[in-house]
Amino acid sequence: MTKAPLQIIPIGGLGEVGKNMMALQYGNDVIIIDAGIMFPENDMLGIDYIIPDFRHLSQQTNLTFHAIIVTHGHEDHTGAIAHVAGAFRAPIYATPLTRGLLEVKLKQARLLEHIDMFTFKAGDTLKFGPFSVETFHVCHSIPDGVGLGVDTPVGMVVHSGDFKFDHTPVDRWPPDFAKLASFSSRGVLALMSDSTNADRAGWTPSESVIDAAFDRVFRRAQGRIIVSTFASLISRIQQVAAAAVRYNRKMAVAGTTMMENIRMAINLGYLELPNDLIITLDDAAKRNPREVVIMATGTQGEPSAVLGRLAAGRHDKLSIQPNDTVIMSAHPIPGNEEMVHRIINRLIQRGAQVIYDPVEQVHVSGHASQEEQKLLINLVRPKYFIPIHGELRHLKAHAQMAEQLGIPRENIAVVENGTMITFQPNGDMEVGERIPGGYVFVDGSGVGDIGPSVMRDRETLARDGVVIVNAVMDRKSHALLADPEIISRGFVFLRDADDLMQSAKLTIKRVLEQNQNANGNKFELVQDALGRLFYNETKRRPMIFAFVNEV
Amino acid sequence: MTKAPLQIIPIGGLGEVGKNMMALQYGNDVIIIDAGIMFPENDMLGIDYIIPDFRHLSQQTNLTFHAIIVTHGHEDHTGAIAHVAGAFRAPIYATPLTRGLLEVKLKQARLLEHIDMFTFKAGDTLKFGPFSVETFHVCHSIPDGVGLGVDTPVGMVVHSGDFKFDHTPVDRWPPDFAKLASFSSRGVLALMSDSTNADRAGWTPSESVIDAAFDRVFRRAQGRIIVSTFASLISRIQQVAAAAVRYNRKMAVAGTTMMENIRMAINLGYLELPNDLIITLDDAAKRNPREVVIMATGTQGEPSAVLGRLAAGRHDKLSIQPNDTVIMSAHPIPGNEEMVHRIINRLIQRGAQVIYDPVEQVHVSGHASQEEQKLLINLVRPKYFIPIHGELRHLKAHAQMAEQLGIPRENIAVVENGTMITFQPNGDMEVGERIPGGYVFVDGSGVGDIGPSVMRDRETLARDGVVIVNAVMDRKSHALLADPEIISRGFVFLRDADDLMQSAKLTIKRVLEQNQNANGNKFELVQDALGRLFYNETKRRPMIFAFVNEV
Repeated sequence: MTKAPLQIIPIGGLGEVGKNMMALQYGNDVIIIDAGIMFPENDMLGIDYIIPDFRHLSQQTNLTFHAIIVTHGHEDHTGAIAHVAGAFRAPIYATPLTRGLLEVKLKQARLLEHIDMFTFKAGDTLKFGPFSVETFHVCHSIPDGVGLGVDTPVGMVVHSGDFKFDHTPVDRWPPDFAKLASFSSRGVLALMSDSTNADRAGWTPSESVIDAAFDRVFRRAQGRIIVSTFASLISRIQQVAAAAVRYNRKMAVAGTTMMENIRMAINLGYLELPNDLIITLDDAAKRNPREVVIMATGTQGEPSAVLGRLAAGRHDKLSIQPNDTVIMSAHPIPGNEEMVHRIINRLIQRGAQVIYDPVEQVHVSGHASQEEQKLLINLVRPKYFIPIHGELRHLKAHAQMAEQLGIPRENIAVVENGTMITFQPNGDMEVGERIPGGYVFVDGSGVGDIGPSVMRDRETLARDGVVIVNAVMDRKSHALLADPEIISRGFVFLRDADDLMQSAKLTIKRVLEQNQNANGNKFELVQDALGRLFYNETKRRPMIFAFVNEV
Repeated sequence: MTKAPLQIIPIGGLGEVGKNMMALQYGNDVIIIDAGIMFPENDMLGIDYIIPDFRHLSQQTNLTFHAIIVTHGHEDHTGAIAHVAGAFRAPIYATPLTRGLLEVKLKQARLLEHIDMFTFKAGDTLKFGPFSVETFHVCHSIPDGVGLGVDTPVGMVVHSGDFKFDHTPVDRWPPDFAKLASFSSRGVLALMSDSTNADRAGWTPSESVIDAAFDRVFRRAQGRIIVSTFASLISRIQQVAAAAVRYNRKMAVAGTTMMENIRMAINLGYLELPNDLIITLDDAAKRNPREVVIMATGTQGEPSAVLGRLAAGRHDKLSIQPNDTVIMSAHPIPGNEEMVHRIINRLIQRGAQVIYDPVEQVHVSGHASQEEQKLLINLVRPKYFIPIHGELRHLKAHAQMAEQLGIPRENIAVVENGTMITFQPNGDMEVGERIPGGYVFVDGSGVGDIGPSVMRDRETLARDGVVIVNAVMDRKSHALLADPEIISRGFVFLRDADDLMQSAKLTIKRVLEQNQNANGNKFELVQDALGRLFYNETKRRPMIFAFVNEV
């Protein structure tokens, strides 16, 4: 049998390479790794989230999609599962905790009964046509994450997943160094490795440093403690529980998703809490504040999450009290800094003591820093290196690191999403052209219907607002039948803009009078004249729509 | 003579306390410190910048405004000078470099000939009615910055300005420790100190560390070097010049503001460049790339600045070449991270090597870290402490530091802008209520005409767009005289929304038919019905305006 080339396809669209979705193709056989969403940037107005643009792949009817393997339970790897599973109709493979989190999403999308799901344990080997996938445990800021060693007819490709080398993780389950070393002894064609922290020197601190920080904060706290973290950060909940037990506090949970995740994690054995630890919010309200710790979501400054509502004084059961201590046990995702700092300032305004990194080390990154990234490269000793999971600047830094470790520059591929990497049967690497694909914005129930032109209109509307004119005139006499109506929104404060609106009315009348015989394009003449007037008077350029009804 | 109370007034509005503008009042005598702008946050749509809301002060006609003292030349301390000087008509006092930068702004506002300006040198004492202002040199990320020791009948108030304790600044002019120590020996009533880095442990690195980083980058660079920094960061330009001389490169400057600042700084003696160092951009284009360094603005990701245009490939004279090295010699101002990282990624995409902190330490903060802040407190030994220049979280951290140094908690005032602090003639401190004042948004030529309602409309328009309906019907027969017109922007991509627009037309017709006798509010009925239709079909809520013209 002639061997086929092996193709690595980081799915097209915005964002960090291969973070949200990736495919490996050998002949007509394909496996998919991860199915996540991207969060919109600040200038993507009105967009809820972004999914990978997988249409180029899903439209190829000759391909067999064997599996969707999800490496861990974070949104940027799971959030698009309903879209991806719906389009590819392939079975999903995940570790127990990741599967639990995926099931919630598929249930919401009413897809759970239509999609096959299979559980594997880190260390299991999965066989899909020509692919043999050897899973291995990695540490990250969620338990039960894996990386993948994918054996193919062309060679072995190792995918790190999101990882850090934590020797003292909360669940006492360190990364599977033995498996990584065994890969290298068998020979690794290519390593794809998490680049998130490639510009960070040293070694990411272990999650265990957080215990010491929690201890200091719990010891000093004079009233309630409110700990905010990600709803999926099971290990952090375990750490808070341990501190609560040490300092004789009971734990209440605000936020249904977090409560559901806690129940699931307990059931699956990923979280061990004393039986009497959890109390209700109502119960917490009745107790001495020094006996209570409350878990809450909202570390990214989301106004509708628990912490956002507390900061705004809009939570129905809770309000910030002067002796409260709020721990922000998370870092802002890039782009969210402003919102997060605003929430912190508002909590302080309401009298809370707010503890966040760098005030205390109450959160650590879940991603490997430079020394860990180097260790992975040297453990695996791949022939080719492909930095993934990072912005271009991170990939580039990671690539330079690999070069310093002796991987030849021509054996390193820094690519963007949508660029296919091909390994020929003889093992040679080729970087292809970019395949079609762009952003797929999800806004309300619309998937992919919003493109650049709609976004540009939203930008214009956001910058200077809108002005709308309605005029009715007699077709024969060319006389206005009433004063033209002018409505504006987001342009000027109307109560202070009487003069401007009077000038606008005069302008409309003048234009209509001077252009009585302009057929059909009177509305354009009005729009142009008003545009000039408004720019001269305000230096703003609102969108202007004029109706000139001739009856 | 009975003594009056002394009042410290951080001017109202958003933002960091006293950063942009502050007033000291004794009896009817007032001095103003700084006149800066704030940068809008990401959700302040369309706003150009924000000025302090000083109307409460400027409207008090019984007061004598002796002076506007500007501590240093950064935008957040100078940017509103035309507004402030225009309103208060007080003379401006500044050091030579700061004055030079202020003059540019007053010239643009055509105010230069109407406002008196006086130059002082750090160390000079200025007398204004009951105030004796002893200026002292501080280090910061712009030369010629000062702090102020303001002697008043109630006691001495020390204002740190924006400062760091740099023992090896580029201009070899360390902070005036002697003057600070002399204040403490005379007794200091209150210290107001820069809190920007109050959550940062240790001591901010000296600007001289940047020389070593530049040296490493210049030594390795294979082609052109492009250094981007703030147009006012004269000391950085001096450092780049030194590296250029060491590595036999000539320096070209892209950006007129930076070039003007360089000329002014040379004339005033704040910048020393060899005569033949500066070349034109055209000349630079003709030389060997290894003999050229180009200075450019745009470190905050501004699309219209030089670096933004280079990243987008839209600069008329320059374009990024594969061997270019771009140095980002600045940190992103909070809120700009996303834009800055986007620019870095695009420069890399075009083939440049991009150097930024933390890849190399090519920028350091201009603000004191915790150990410097503590040193200032212990040098000055004030009775009262007022943290300024920071978000609430920074002020709070700074206050806790002061408490640890032995200043009693009741002698520390953490306030927000608009909250007056009063020192009674006996020296007792009282924190007052907040005085009226809010944001003053500047948008186009409008100053303060945009308030919360206009901002909310812009948010709604930005999120889901706008739909406008124009219907003309016969007053008597209630028949539509033509199909209703529907225009939408920012809502859906029209080419794919034929069905939705057909449904909308049918809805409009149905509503008008069923409500023939609804007088006057037909437009509301249409708006409500369309709102429901659009939400059901798209889960979006555009702004809807309907005109129903009955003729």
